[in-house]
Amino acid sequence: MATKKDYGKKALAAHKKLRGKLSVVPKQKLDSVDAWSTMYTPGVGAVSSHVAKKEKDARQYTMKGNTVAVVSDGSAVLGLGNLGALGSLPVMEGKCVIFKEMADVDAFPIVLDTQNPDEIVETVKRIAPGFGGINLEDIAAPHCFEIEERLKKELPIPVMHDDQHGTAIVVLAGLINAAKVVKKKLEGMKVVIVGAGAAGRAIALILIKAGIKNVVVLDRAGVIHTKRKGISGYKKELAKVTNPNGLSGGLNTAVEDADVLIGVSGPGKIAQMHVEKMADDAIVFALANPVPEIFPDDAKRAGAKVVATGRSDYPNQVNNALAFPGIFRGALDAEVRDITDDMKIRAAKAIASMVKKPIAAKIIPSVMTKGLSAKVAKAVKQKTRRR
Amino acid sequence: MATKKDYGKKALAAHKKLRGKLSVVPKQKLDSVDAWSTMYTPGVGAVSSHVAKKEKDARQYTMKGNTVAVVSDGSAVLGLGNLGALGSLPVMEGKCVIFKEMADVDAFPIVLDTQNPDEIVETVKRIAPGFGGINLEDIAAPHCFEIEERLKKELPIPVMHDDQHGTAIVVLAGLINAAKVVKKKLEGMKVVIVGAGAAGRAIALILIKAGIKNVVVLDRAGVIHTKRKGISGYKKELAKVTNPNGLSGGLNTAVEDADVLIGVSGPGKIAQMHVEKMADDAIVFALANPVPEIFPDDAKRAGAKVVATGRSDYPNQVNNALAFPGIFRGALDAEVRDITDDMKIRAAKAIASMVKKPIAAKIIPSVMTKGLSAKVAKAVKQKTRRR
Repeated sequence: MATKKDYGKKALAAHKKLRGKLSVVPKQKLDSVDAWSTMYTPGVGAVSSHVAKKEKDARQYTMKGNTVAVVSDGSAVLGLGNLGALGSLPVMEGKCVIFKEMADVDAFPIVLDTQNPDEIVETVKRIAPGFGGINLEDIAAPHCFEIEERLKKELPIPVMHDDQHGTAIVVLAGLINAAKVVKKKLEGMKVVIVGAGAAGRAIALILIKAGIKNVVVLDRAGVIHTKRKGISGYKKELAKVTNPNGLSGGLNTAVEDADVLIGVSGPGKIAQMHVEKMADDAIVFALANPVPEIFPDDAKRAGAKVVATGRSDYPNQVNNALAFPGIFRGALDAEVRDITDDMKIRAAKAIASMVKKPIAAKIIPSVMTKGLSAKVAKAVKQKTRRR
Repeated sequence: MATKKDYGKKALAAHKKLRGKLSVVPKQKLDSVDAWSTMYTPGVGAVSSHVAKKEKDARQYTMKGNTVAVVSDGSAVLGLGNLGALGSLPVMEGKCVIFKEMADVDAFPIVLDTQNPDEIVETVKRIAPGFGGINLEDIAAPHCFEIEERLKKELPIPVMHDDQHGTAIVVLAGLINAAKVVKKKLEGMKVVIVGAGAAGRAIALILIKAGIKNVVVLDRAGVIHTKRKGISGYKKELAKVTNPNGLSGGLNTAVEDADVLIGVSGPGKIAQMHVEKMADDAIVFALANPVPEIFPDDAKRAGAKVVATGRSDYPNQVNNALAFPGIFRGALDAEVRDITDDMKIRAAKAIASMVKKPIAAKIIPSVMTKGLSAKVAKAVKQKTRRR
């Protein structure tokens, strides 16, 4: 198997050869006077006048109806940190490739020369008219929360920060199947989440929304609880809805009798002794990438029954690409204004359902599963009225 | 021949069927684990890190090197006026189609939900990192002058407002050949321009730059001259460099002994009596679209030898598509920071040279002339050092 370093070399060579990964191509060639006159002047004037008068028809007469902006400020690129606008561009192009390949969505990368939340919100709003949806990407916490929330409120098109919700949806999908494997009820499980960034918060919230009552979240300072000294901002909000038993302390205490341990923090943050303290048939999702919180073999030796990572070279890869293309496909088709929590949960169930008979080594489908995004899109559209 | 109304109907039907004119497509399919791992994680991380460190390599490793944003605020869409962002989208998509078809440039429309010049400049600067050039389009005068000037100064990539310079370049190309047809020296001709908007100003400036000394511009109030009461802003600047003989009054006076009369104003603004007062072998460019300042037959009956319009159904169409795709192709290839006046004049000469033997009925090549954009690109690149 190729190593990460090998892939880095291969990727550099491939990118240089291709000179980027996307082309913008016409649906109709300009091969006759007739084509020029209908695609451009004078004919296009009638289309512009029509769309200007009847703005909602823009989805039928222009590219808006099938186009999503993949927007980043480059402040949290993959696990590499703050690489800035240009540093994020290769990843955003990659996202757009995935959008097209998996769900026939025309996605275009917009990388921003600002990391100021007000300026990001302002800029996205100003460029929004031509897009049917906004996929926010690789924007660091806590700014990502404010930016997403404001854009959701202020724009008439769906907005989703993939690092939060894409991850959360796939984690929920994995847990639905993992619960079946260990024969426990999802709702009754105790879930401990190590990491309270963009993904950690979103995972906690979707699990609670899906009916799991006992969710405990830890940041670097330990368990998040309402009485913790100096707790503020979104962590204070998180404290209110998680940790119903008022736990305090560190991971050592938190993992006692936990059914599920989810790492969204960094390399090596989970030790075997933590897994050993968990309940029987422990489920461990170690999602730091490329180096997980604990390697699958170590987790299993410590008693874990089901293990997932963010890597493609171990079983059960938590890959956002399982979620975001189908989610936006469904949202565009149904012309929804917002991607709701219910849609996200339905999407997670749809992803889970793509594994016919879950076993420990296969609770999450591969990104190359045929019909996956279509299934997710269908789930999103279900019960959704057109605007 | 189909009428404008027929083309409107056809265009509406075609646009609805296509649902917009552009697709964003991957250069490489995600058809194997290997493709996923080089185009996306883990391989793409090496590309992001490289580009973040060595920003100028972004042109080689990302789509930036071949991508242009076609930006509009929808304030002056074709001859239809202020249709706003969505109303401008069909036209901007059309421009992007032309970019790809004529010059293999990947162009993407950005339509803005603001018509405030400060906000437009700010927004374009913030989204600029992913683009190799900015094509401004259908932005009304006088805002367009300030917006273009500031962006040219503040961005490290070429910026061109096509309604100004695209038109000016093609007009100069046409005049180069028209001068040959009437056997007059370009530099010695008296040129009268009716209309002092975006195109009128740019035409005046490029003609002067190309060596024509006697250029007179009129707006609704008549001839522009330095002593005109209340003259201000860009018209005051224009007065300083045009009208060397200090003419005043209206079109009636201005056209006396003029060799060239260029209309960039509106339907019917030039009468036969104006053409009759011109010098022998008069050249008339009546560019208002679709209804010109004077129809070709009327101009000819009044003594015009060479006539051009903006329409495709008369000889000699002044069509910006002759200029902008090749201009940006050359600018991207040579990685220039700015599209200079010299480049524009070289582009005009290149366009003119595509008509081997100019005659009155053919001074401007067709947009479907093979090799045209490549020739323009080559002219732009000539003597241009890579940055």
